[in-house]
Amino acid sequence: MHKRTFTLVAAALLGGQVAAHAESKQEDAVEYRQGMMMGMAWNFGEMGAMVKGKVPFDQARFAFLAGRMATLAPMPVEAFTPDTADVKSEVKPELWKHLDDFKKRMKDLEDATAKLATVAKAGDEGATKEQFGATAKVCKGCHDEYHKKHE
Amino acid sequence: MHKRTFTLVAAALLGGQVAAHAESKQEDAVEYRQGMMMGMAWNFGEMGAMVKGKVPFDQARFAFLAGRMATLAPMPVEAFTPDTADVKSEVKPELWKHLDDFKKRMKDLEDATAKLATVAKAGDEGATKEQFGATAKVCKGCHDEYHKKHE
Repeated sequence: MHKRTFTLVAAALLGGQVAAHAESKQEDAVEYRQGMMMGMAWNFGEMGAMVKGKVPFDQARFAFLAGRMATLAPMPVEAFTPDTADVKSEVKPELWKHLDDFKKRMKDLEDATAKLATVAKAGDEGATKEQFGATAKVCKGCHDEYHKKHE
Repeated sequence: MHKRTFTLVAAALLGGQVAAHAESKQEDAVEYRQGMMMGMAWNFGEMGAMVKGKVPFDQARFAFLAGRMATLAPMPVEAFTPDTADVKSEVKPELWKHLDDFKKRMKDLEDATAKLATVAKAGDEGATKEQFGATAKVCKGCHDEYHKKHE
């Protein structure tokens, strides 16, 4: 991962002997946005375990996770650029035809996660779980449209 | 990526028919921490291009990127757990023998990136570039110790 980005920075700044790598800027972009999506899934998954009652509901931890997810939500969109369309990824080709709709959905996610962070911090467990469900629907709606199904 | 985490959440909350996947919790953890590292590299790479003069120095953008990196820096460490030692990753086995040192280095990174965000926001270009270099050394020091070299 991030071979090229880190290598370039390290080589330029620290003077190390570092070989060139094959990863392209477009491959870096795909890896970056997948990383940010995974970051959201990681936090969302732990919140989900609380919502489902698999682990006890811990309001402070939930609020912390929701805050992290809200911080991550605005990050990936800048890397969904048409020049990455040919890089292997989990994006359906439809996304590139409906990029404005996709960006609107990502903005909806920003709003939903920001609200989740606010509600979770306020501490009402019922309202928190409700907003978690609303956020999950935003995730799923966009995945249904633009994310390849896992086999 | 994040098949398991997203699938579990979606299946439980949205009632979809979703097949079970093979990814383990430990594999998710590796993917998560790699994603957060890639997020840092993405932001750091763009800052580096400015420091190196490959693109014009844009103080507002630099401060934005430094802020994102400072936000990401505390995130990956929780996923460096000994139960992930057997998952294929770019971590040298030494890391698991020196986990306290690794965590100290990650804390140093938090501090360095927080300072970078503060300095960049204040707007002195020279001081910003200096703190960028200091941050790069923290990155490189830890990679040299605990990150497998890229071929």
